[in-house]
Amino acid sequence: MVATINRSSFVPMKQVNINDPFWGPYIELVRDVVVPYQWDAINDRVEGAEISHAVQNFKIAAGMAEGEFYGFVFQDTDVAKWLEAVAYLLAKEPNDKLEAIADEMIDIIEKAQQPDGYLNTYFSIKAPELKWRNLTEAHELYTAGHMIEAGVAYYQATGKSKLLDIVCRIADNIADVFGDGPDQIPGYDGHQEIELALVKLYHATNNEKYLQLSKYFIDKRGTNDFFREEAEKRDWSSIWHNGKIHIDREYFQAHKPVREQSEAVGHAVRVVYMLSGMIDIARETNDESLIEASRTLWNNIVSKQMYITGGIGSMVHGEAFSFDYDLPNDTVYAETCASIGLIFSAQRMLQLEPNAHYADVMERALFNTVISGMALDGKHFFYVNPLEVFPQQCHGHNKNFNHIKPVRPEWYGCACCPPNLARLLASLGDYMYSVNDNTIYSHLFIGGTTKVAVAGQEIVLTQHSELPWQGKVSYELELEASAAFALAVRVPNWSNKTTIRVNGEEIAVEALLKNGYAVIERAWSNGDKVELELDMSIKRMKAHPKVRANAGKVALQRGPLVYCIEQADNGPDLQLVRLPDNAELKLAYNSELANGVYTIEATGLSVDMEAWQHDLYAANTSLPLKEKKLTFIPYYTWANRGEGEMMVWVKE
Amino acid sequence: MVATINRSSFVPMKQVNINDPFWGPYIELVRDVVVPYQWDAINDRVEGAEISHAVQNFKIAAGMAEGEFYGFVFQDTDVAKWLEAVAYLLAKEPNDKLEAIADEMIDIIEKAQQPDGYLNTYFSIKAPELKWRNLTEAHELYTAGHMIEAGVAYYQATGKSKLLDIVCRIADNIADVFGDGPDQIPGYDGHQEIELALVKLYHATNNEKYLQLSKYFIDKRGTNDFFREEAEKRDWSSIWHNGKIHIDREYFQAHKPVREQSEAVGHAVRVVYMLSGMIDIARETNDESLIEASRTLWNNIVSKQMYITGGIGSMVHGEAFSFDYDLPNDTVYAETCASIGLIFSAQRMLQLEPNAHYADVMERALFNTVISGMALDGKHFFYVNPLEVFPQQCHGHNKNFNHIKPVRPEWYGCACCPPNLARLLASLGDYMYSVNDNTIYSHLFIGGTTKVAVAGQEIVLTQHSELPWQGKVSYELELEASAAFALAVRVPNWSNKTTIRVNGEEIAVEALLKNGYAVIERAWSNGDKVELELDMSIKRMKAHPKVRANAGKVALQRGPLVYCIEQADNGPDLQLVRLPDNAELKLAYNSELANGVYTIEATGLSVDMEAWQHDLYAANTSLPLKEKKLTFIPYYTWANRGEGEMMVWVKE
Repeated sequence: MVATINRSSFVPMKQVNINDPFWGPYIELVRDVVVPYQWDAINDRVEGAEISHAVQNFKIAAGMAEGEFYGFVFQDTDVAKWLEAVAYLLAKEPNDKLEAIADEMIDIIEKAQQPDGYLNTYFSIKAPELKWRNLTEAHELYTAGHMIEAGVAYYQATGKSKLLDIVCRIADNIADVFGDGPDQIPGYDGHQEIELALVKLYHATNNEKYLQLSKYFIDKRGTNDFFREEAEKRDWSSIWHNGKIHIDREYFQAHKPVREQSEAVGHAVRVVYMLSGMIDIARETNDESLIEASRTLWNNIVSKQMYITGGIGSMVHGEAFSFDYDLPNDTVYAETCASIGLIFSAQRMLQLEPNAHYADVMERALFNTVISGMALDGKHFFYVNPLEVFPQQCHGHNKNFNHIKPVRPEWYGCACCPPNLARLLASLGDYMYSVNDNTIYSHLFIGGTTKVAVAGQEIVLTQHSELPWQGKVSYELELEASAAFALAVRVPNWSNKTTIRVNGEEIAVEALLKNGYAVIERAWSNGDKVELELDMSIKRMKAHPKVRANAGKVALQRGPLVYCIEQADNGPDLQLVRLPDNAELKLAYNSELANGVYTIEATGLSVDMEAWQHDLYAANTSLPLKEKKLTFIPYYTWANRGEGEMMVWVKE
Repeated sequence: MVATINRSSFVPMKQVNINDPFWGPYIELVRDVVVPYQWDAINDRVEGAEISHAVQNFKIAAGMAEGEFYGFVFQDTDVAKWLEAVAYLLAKEPNDKLEAIADEMIDIIEKAQQPDGYLNTYFSIKAPELKWRNLTEAHELYTAGHMIEAGVAYYQATGKSKLLDIVCRIADNIADVFGDGPDQIPGYDGHQEIELALVKLYHATNNEKYLQLSKYFIDKRGTNDFFREEAEKRDWSSIWHNGKIHIDREYFQAHKPVREQSEAVGHAVRVVYMLSGMIDIARETNDESLIEASRTLWNNIVSKQMYITGGIGSMVHGEAFSFDYDLPNDTVYAETCASIGLIFSAQRMLQLEPNAHYADVMERALFNTVISGMALDGKHFFYVNPLEVFPQQCHGHNKNFNHIKPVRPEWYGCACCPPNLARLLASLGDYMYSVNDNTIYSHLFIGGTTKVAVAGQEIVLTQHSELPWQGKVSYELELEASAAFALAVRVPNWSNKTTIRVNGEEIAVEALLKNGYAVIERAWSNGDKVELELDMSIKRMKAHPKVRANAGKVALQRGPLVYCIEQADNGPDLQLVRLPDNAELKLAYNSELANGVYTIEATGLSVDMEAWQHDLYAANTSLPLKEKKLTFIPYYTWANRGEGEMMVWVKE
């Protein structure tokens, strides 16, 4: 075993108390609305909602109830992700009632586990003969992975080890079943997740077996034709269809070994979950080939296949990546879960090598696609996050658009995104600070108080942030004794001019810049204060000329927020709108939208449709433009005022 | 029976001898390549081609061979359309060998017909118990309609009545089976075609029963829930799927009575075949409500749902219309057959009311989408006619584009378009001239000699046309004796300045204009000559501002030809190209493309991609434009030089 290299470790959320006017309400929403609502949902107590049956499945498998399995093959994960979100809430704040409910659920789970450690209600109840025989479709290891994440989180939050013990037995069983031994399965799951989960379990238990098992899945993937081999043994039966299974190895990223995958292809969530696992293993085992492969895959995603909103996966077919620079704004997928997975990967890349680029992407995804995924009532969600919507297209017979919802629906039959959002927001503290030797990195501008061990003591770092509305951010340090270390503050890629003051005195930022961070190295004293003034000017963004969908178009961004125009402010027929080079752009405050937002008021132009006195086509006609006041709103707030057109990329 | 009103009648192709440098080669191709090739194809003699079995099905049904039915439920129509095309060839030129083959085929068909007149090999061989029980899907009347068209054409071409007698027995049987009587079926076909076919049969036989039967189908359509009613009786069984049938009445234009259908919805070919039947019945029965409904439906199609190429049907899903102004250039369907059906409708509208608008549309479809449908070798065909192609999109996993072929394939399993093209081109003479009282209308500029009965004599009209390359068109009249009548020459909507000379003397066109025709009324003498000089300047075309896909874009048209840019001339990344307002546009001759074409050379602009030194997105960057020489080629010639990008609508 190569010695593990902790290039940089994130400060765990337990030590981070978020107190931020922007993010606070989201986290409270998760606590007060999303988590209780989801408990009701998975217990089938929400009137009118689709049946979940997730808790009931566990009760049946535990012998506590009679009945049949119901739901998706991965229905158990709804319970697991709920428990994980609960754990993050409990880590921050005691809640006896919630903890008692969770404990009770864990008791049921324990009873549902089989003597050999196997735990999956679909197979226990419905298809025991197919156990471990259809990894391609059955999400069996994926489901195990989510339970493992829950077990680790619950243990770390509460110190209670029952669920951790359960998931260790799951992992032990998997370690017995999978491998290159004579009676083992030389395979991997159709949906990556187990890999990153096992690394978490390794960290929680220090049992290297789990790390090795994770590494096995990473290393094995795509080296053989496993999915076809297991299908042959099943006579090509499928879980989903009555017919025979069709295997597209690219969809599962099993078309080549992970180290040879230079382009992101197939199901987007699978890609970023896999990438997270790859980075974990690369870091833990100091595997240079895997580090390089991780960088390559990451770079392909963010430099060729990512929307300006941080959305990834441009095709509804397979919820998948298509190819470089193919980023249609209207037929897009950009699943909320995929951007969450991108954040998982970014956080891990930051552990590998602190570079503000990763945090820039993390922030882009977080402030745009991720929170676009949830309405501020905590009860309406987007699965798909388009950058351009023309509602009539979504309602018609055109299947290219039927996956696009012009307003956030209440819940989903396949409810992967809402609980994923819940667990991310509830654990947001995990993504803010990392420590490397004697350097504290601040990656995200989110207010709160953090305890960080550095230079032999535990210091308290308090951040105030006026983002995303104003560019003022400050850090105050509480130290028991003065100490020399570095505070590395991210200089975001959207800030063209960044001023930093230490105890009121401006410092030369350029000279301190290292990989996108202003690394302020000095002997710090108690009460020291670092103030940032970030450039919050409105940016006219362009896309790479290879992006066909955005040719001749511009998008507005201010700070981390991408903006869009909506019919509610600008009327219908947004295709008429132009935003010329010299358009005046001004900020305005709108207290009625979301919790209050800054809009951008622009003096744009609009094609004068009244002037068109022709048929469908006309020769040598010039289309007169008239001045039009345009209102841009932050992308994350779209579709909160009824159904209407929306557009991020506007013609220049 | 209301007296029929022959508002205007087309001169039948038998009297029209086309002799045109542009169209001649197409018609020769049909004669020399397409028809012989298709005979081999439907006899399964083409190596490597998909099995047709169409002739064999008839032999089996005739008791002349053993075996099972094979192919689509409408496989018989491949034989019928082939016979129809053969008839048109024989009408122009004797061909003993071809006629003998056709006669032999007709003998087989006769033997395959059942005693009651029923003729459909799918149901005879494979599913006699389902006869007339699944009109929704089975194309039973559609198949009958095509055989009726063949029977009429073959009779008119050769004078032989065997096939006409066969199809009369088919029609008689249908008249027995369908209707509102106690033992009759009160329904209609899932795919319109029988309606227009029965009107042709009525004209060939003067038997009014066939006109009434056609009118029955037109009148009945959409007045009841027939498809669901018959499905219920079948326990919702489906021909296509193992599962149950799903009925979308809009797909079949059975959602409301035809007189109430103000918007074209559903399968595009069905719509225009239906519309053709509607116009036929409207004209024959002088039904004002049906005339109005036909105009309304026509206008919706051409003023809100037609591509500039004359393509219709913008969705692959259902090969269907979507909604007004929804005309995506890249995910488009625009089936060749649909534009052929649009031409059928245009010809019939011209019979109803001579108006150059209909001929303009006919010409647009003919010169662009229709001939784009076939390569000049007569062996490669497009089903789908996109206006923008990025080949990588078509080959990937994105099902939005999988129907788009970047080059013409050899043949299709469902081979509806190639024979449809063959029969249209072989009968092109049918679409050129019509006569109304004392007026001869010239609708299309296609050279040749025509015999027209007018003013009590049969005159000979010889047209010379330099279209589509030059605007010179002339007509020479041969008369036995001088006579007074009108020659109405279409002034196409693309000609901004049209000069007309009669015997060398210019006349005032404006004063003569009536519904888009210059109506030259005079006493004509033998040897009189009318010369037209049409405006062939290059037109910068714009689309209605409601067309989102074309906002900010321009297309070039010259004469009837729409132009496009291709990668072969302009390199890749066509999204970089701009064609500013003031771009110089010049004609150039290219002898190597097709049979020689005029291209348009433009001084355009192109985004300088080399200047982009950024990531995927960048702020406040201006994208420098550099001059770029652009070559536009006629749309119909695209995809003849290998695979590459193509674009009709270019950013301004």
